[in-house]
Amino acid sequence: MKELKQITVIGMGFLGSSITLAVSRYFSGIKTVGYAHRALTRRKAKQLAVANEVVDDIKASVCGADLVVLATPIRTFEEIFVAIADALPAGCIVTDVGSTKVLPHRWAARKLPANVNYVGSHPIAGSEKRGVEFATEDLFDQAVCILTMTKKTNRQAAVTLKQFWSKLGCSVKLMKPVEHDRIFANISHLPHITAASLINANTSESLKFAGNGFIDTSRIASGPANIWADILLTNAKNTTRSVDKIIAELLKMKKAIEAGDEKQVEKLLEAARDKRAAMMSYKKRKREIIP
Amino acid sequence: MKELKQITVIGMGFLGSSITLAVSRYFSGIKTVGYAHRALTRRKAKQLAVANEVVDDIKASVCGADLVVLATPIRTFEEIFVAIADALPAGCIVTDVGSTKVLPHRWAARKLPANVNYVGSHPIAGSEKRGVEFATEDLFDQAVCILTMTKKTNRQAAVTLKQFWSKLGCSVKLMKPVEHDRIFANISHLPHITAASLINANTSESLKFAGNGFIDTSRIASGPANIWADILLTNAKNTTRSVDKIIAELLKMKKAIEAGDEKQVEKLLEAARDKRAAMMSYKKRKREIIP
Repeated sequence: MKELKQITVIGMGFLGSSITLAVSRYFSGIKTVGYAHRALTRRKAKQLAVANEVVDDIKASVCGADLVVLATPIRTFEEIFVAIADALPAGCIVTDVGSTKVLPHRWAARKLPANVNYVGSHPIAGSEKRGVEFATEDLFDQAVCILTMTKKTNRQAAVTLKQFWSKLGCSVKLMKPVEHDRIFANISHLPHITAASLINANTSESLKFAGNGFIDTSRIASGPANIWADILLTNAKNTTRSVDKIIAELLKMKKAIEAGDEKQVEKLLEAARDKRAAMMSYKKRKREIIP
Repeated sequence: MKELKQITVIGMGFLGSSITLAVSRYFSGIKTVGYAHRALTRRKAKQLAVANEVVDDIKASVCGADLVVLATPIRTFEEIFVAIADALPAGCIVTDVGSTKVLPHRWAARKLPANVNYVGSHPIAGSEKRGVEFATEDLFDQAVCILTMTKKTNRQAAVTLKQFWSKLGCSVKLMKPVEHDRIFANISHLPHITAASLINANTSESLKFAGNGFIDTSRIASGPANIWADILLTNAKNTTRSVDKIIAELLKMKKAIEAGDEKQVEKLLEAARDKRAAMMSYKKRKREIIP
C-alpha cells in the first residue's frame, strides 16, 4: 500500500468532515487538509478542528496531497477537476464520495492530468443531517463502500483506496461505474423519488393521520433537496427507467385490486415480504445491520 | 357512560389479545371474554391468560357482553355478524378494529339486529408482529383511534366507545366511514402498496446493496400479506385511486428528470420535504411521537 502522508478533502460538509475526523482517528501520522467553498464553512471547520489544516484556496489545498477526496455536489466535480488539475502532485489518487459514478469517471478522464489516478468511491453512509457540526468520526463503521473502476483505472491506486476505506471501517466492494449507477438507481434513487411522491400524493390534512408506517416509509424524503436533485440528474437515464419499473409494479397491484383478485394481491404482497426477509437475512449475515 | 361489565373480543390475534390485556390493566371489575376460530389460538390464549375466559363457541362468547369487538380479518365480519346476531344482548355495543370502515358499517346495518348499536373503530396501532404471544397491554398508549359513525349511529354508544378507547390510552377522533376510507387509502394503504412495489421493482441482487433508507422505506412490506390483501380489497376504489395519485407524482418527477429541469426536480423534492416537516411538527405537538 502506498503510504498516505496527506489527505485533502474538498467540501467540508457532513460527509467531508466525517472523513477528516475518521482519518484522524484511524490513521496515525497523516495530515488532513480541508477546503470549503464558503468562508462560513471554513470558519466552522476551523473552530471545530475537524481537519489539521483548513485552507482558503482550492489549489493550495491539494498541494502535497497523496489522496484528494471530493465531497461536494456531483455537478461541481468537473469544475473542481479543472480547478485543481495543475496543482495535483504526480501520482496522487483522486476520488469522490458522490452517489452516482458514471459522470465523475467521464469528467475525471477528460479533465484530470494523466499522471494522477482517479478511482470512484461511494460510501453508503448517508444521513438527513447536514453540515460540519454533525460530522462524526465513526460514520463509516460497518458501512459498505463501493469503489468504481474502469479498464483504464490504475490497479495500485484502487488497492490503496480500498485499504484506505477499510481502515475507516468500511466493507469495500468493487464495481464498474455503469453497474453502480444501474443498481443504485433502483435501490437508492428510486426509494427517494418514491418517498417524495408518496408525500406529494397526500394532502396536509391526510398527513395528520400518518402512523409509524408512513413515518418510516417517507423518512428519506426529508433529505436535502439540492443534493438529491444532484443525484437524480446525474443518473437520469437509470433513474427514469427505475421509475418505469415501480409504475409497472403499482399497475400490477392496481389491476389485481380492481379485479378483486385476492390470490394475485396476496401473491404480490407475499413476494415483496419474502424478498425483504431474504434481504434482511443477508444484511444480518454480513453484519451490515445488528440482528 | 354506560357501565361496561363484560367485553368480548372475537379474534385472539395480536390486536385482539392486546385489547383484553389492556382492558384488564386499565379497567377494574370488568370481565374479558375471548373467542378464536382456531383451537390452537384458544389454547395459547388460555395458557397466556390474556382474557378472563376463553370460550369455544362464538355465540356463547357474546352472551352477557356489553361490548363486542371483532378483531378478525375484515372479510369475516359479515359472517360473524350473522353468527352472533341472535345471541347479542339488547343494547349491546358492537365494534371492530378493521382498517377499512365502509363495508363493516354496511354489513352491520344489514346483519345486526336493530336493538344493538354498531360503531366502527380503527385503532392506529399496527405492528409487523402477529399472534397472541406478542400481545401487549400498552399497545394503545398514545395511539390514535378513529371512531366511525353515520347519521344512524347511536350517539350514546359512540360516547361510551370513545370513553372505552380513551381509557386504553387512545386519542379518539370521529369520522364518517367514507371519509375514513378515503383518507386511509392515501395515508396507510398506499404506503403499503408502494413499499411492496418498491421491493418488487428490485432484484435480489440489487437488494444486497440496500442502505438504511431502503430498509426503512420498505419496512411495512413485511406485514402479513393476507391481512393486507383483506384491507386493500375492502377499500378497492379508494386504493386504486390512490395508486393513480402516486403514479401521477412519479411521472411528474420522471418528466422533470428527463428534461434535466433542475428547478422542477428540486421543487418537487422541496415540497415533499416541507410537507413531511409540517407533518412531523404536528405529530410532535400532538404528542403522537416523542420529540
